[in-house]
Amino acid sequence: MTDHGATGGVANTTMDETRLARAALAWLVEPGSRELHALVSSDGPVRALRRLVAGDVPPGALRGAAEARLRSADPWQVATDALARTERLGARLVIPEDDEWPARLDDLVRIGGSSTDSRPDRDTSPPLCLWVRGPWPLAEALDRSVAVVGARAATSYGSHVATDLGYGLAERGWTVVSGGAYGIDAAAHRGALTAAGITVAVLACGVDRPYPASNTGLFDRIAERGLLISEWPPGAAPFRHRFLIRNRVIAAATKGTVVVEASARSGAKQTLGRAMRLGRPAMVVPGPITSSMSVGCHELLREFPNTRLVTGVPQVLEEVGRIGDDLAPIERGPSHPRDELDSTAGALLDAMPRRRAAGVEEIAASAGVDLRDVMRKLPLLAHLGFVVERDGGYALTSKGVR
Amino acid sequence: MTDHGATGGVANTTMDETRLARAALAWLVEPGSRELHALVSSDGPVRALRRLVAGDVPPGALRGAAEARLRSADPWQVATDALARTERLGARLVIPEDDEWPARLDDLVRIGGSSTDSRPDRDTSPPLCLWVRGPWPLAEALDRSVAVVGARAATSYGSHVATDLGYGLAERGWTVVSGGAYGIDAAAHRGALTAAGITVAVLACGVDRPYPASNTGLFDRIAERGLLISEWPPGAAPFRHRFLIRNRVIAAATKGTVVVEASARSGAKQTLGRAMRLGRPAMVVPGPITSSMSVGCHELLREFPNTRLVTGVPQVLEEVGRIGDDLAPIERGPSHPRDELDSTAGALLDAMPRRRAAGVEEIAASAGVDLRDVMRKLPLLAHLGFVVERDGGYALTSKGVR
Repeated sequence: MTDHGATGGVANTTMDETRLARAALAWLVEPGSRELHALVSSDGPVRALRRLVAGDVPPGALRGAAEARLRSADPWQVATDALARTERLGARLVIPEDDEWPARLDDLVRIGGSSTDSRPDRDTSPPLCLWVRGPWPLAEALDRSVAVVGARAATSYGSHVATDLGYGLAERGWTVVSGGAYGIDAAAHRGALTAAGITVAVLACGVDRPYPASNTGLFDRIAERGLLISEWPPGAAPFRHRFLIRNRVIAAATKGTVVVEASARSGAKQTLGRAMRLGRPAMVVPGPITSSMSVGCHELLREFPNTRLVTGVPQVLEEVGRIGDDLAPIERGPSHPRDELDSTAGALLDAMPRRRAAGVEEIAASAGVDLRDVMRKLPLLAHLGFVVERDGGYALTSKGVR
Repeated sequence: MTDHGATGGVANTTMDETRLARAALAWLVEPGSRELHALVSSDGPVRALRRLVAGDVPPGALRGAAEARLRSADPWQVATDALARTERLGARLVIPEDDEWPARLDDLVRIGGSSTDSRPDRDTSPPLCLWVRGPWPLAEALDRSVAVVGARAATSYGSHVATDLGYGLAERGWTVVSGGAYGIDAAAHRGALTAAGITVAVLACGVDRPYPASNTGLFDRIAERGLLISEWPPGAAPFRHRFLIRNRVIAAATKGTVVVEASARSGAKQTLGRAMRLGRPAMVVPGPITSSMSVGCHELLREFPNTRLVTGVPQVLEEVGRIGDDLAPIERGPSHPRDELDSTAGALLDAMPRRRAAGVEEIAASAGVDLRDVMRKLPLLAHLGFVVERDGGYALTSKGVR
């Protein structure tokens, strides 16, 4: 490993070093810090980390936060350990420098106030990196996505509605993003899984210990067929304040947010607030006025003229969809034309045999693409309708043949 | 009776003749006609009737409609019979020339289009007269009133909400106006009656045969403790189109309208549309998106930015109430100062003994006020907190003593 203490120019920085520095920063300072975001933007992650380690930043909240953790461990070592653990988990660290980074997240820079602003909602900067578990390239999975969030103490009405929305969105090729919590979140994830769609749980703890533990069965299925993502390194605990910091990622990663049920004091209201500040469609499902779990929903609809009352998937798609695409008759999977695929996906399709199924190794060898990338990419191509799983491998569909 | 065929100037017209002419016109032409309203405005009701009888109006819908009914009977005779029947019923005919006419109804002139406009929603002119059954002076009963309307096929949720709204509004001294139909209407009336408040049913048929017949028990209680009102003479049948014509009266008579449940094709939506056109608060109660009886409510909230989602009495009063009055802590009955009472009411209070209850005959004699007026006025004064019922008569409260 490089001597990280040396002052190296950005040009000298390798991707591995950048990745390690971002992982270290994610441990050193709680996510969302605008001061840290500004420092990384100006100096790059490696130099930013070196300056924090050396105490070479102005006195203030950022320096104080970093110093507190620097006393306990060496950040480079922590990051090295975290990435080793990540690898063992079968997870990966995705950083803004990677192709699969969802550019949409960087819209979060728009909603911060000034860096001297000390309001409690100042932790709104984009994530420095994301730990990811699951088979889909992150950006592609989130490209057409809707957040469905709400109360943990959901009623059977709310759970029913969230499941229906999750199912209906997934059925139309939309990824369903939520927070993995009890109640509405879990129902939305489950609905999407039932429709064999992609669902993404944005966690407020390490992807190795998704919270709550009693949703373990659900998280296992999401890790297998969707994505678990987190700004916190493996092992991080789900501290209460982390849920609120996390919510901005749910709002920013998606094309719009739907709140299904929310009590008067609900985190889901905050997520919707973030969506509104980002200029994304902010949608709310009404409910009985006799239900305390709809009180927050009705407050949102009354107080914010920008919120939109929605009663089902077609109305959600009206807000987030594009005419001629999602408003067209329902079809299985999105109408993603082949020309919009990235070069790796295109190479895989080109390399596949025209008249039979092929195993992943054969496709990887033929396309000259890393086996791990092939294993990530093929399920997405199946989801998009370019290939189908067959005979233990994959075969082209008529859509996949150029 | 005067020779109604003679051409008399307006100055020669007596109140009885005016009343008779309005009753005749109400029979001759279905209510809401803009052409008839224009004719009555320019010529007065007596001359308007004479011109219609003589065929002295331009050919068109109004003349055609009148001719059709003129063939069957003499309008003056019909009106004379109708008023006799009204008297036998213990009902009365209230006309714009009367003190108890609710001036608010005349706002309906504002929402008509041009008189050549032939759209189906052109029947929006103010009523020519109203048949009234019940103890309250009409204008006072409607002064502080809210319409609560909705689906006939209400769910238990909708009925519960309508009852609660009716009760809560009546408890705060507001009159609850509705259409007397099954479902939401009946629930709203019942809630108000349970709170011992005033409720007004605006009918689309004669006040002697309120529809539906199975609500007879309810109508009897309303006639006794509230008001049954109608633009149609006693005996008129509840033809389907009359409900839609009637809806404008519900919207115009009240300070605001609340829709509790409405299917996709609901008359309640039309009533709310009238309220919006009149510039009155147009309020909607949301419900479960899984309920077909809330579909119309959600459509209204989505399609009309002027509608307001409400979840209870305080929010309704926020829309229709005045600060410092209805937003103040709940009190029994409105805070109507004695100086705002009309001269008859003031005379009654002045005439009442200070230290004991008195019967209605004694009060009438002492005040020199017609017994029938006394019997109408005292319950209102009780409702407003100036007198209480006691010992088979009425006694002054501390508020009633000047």
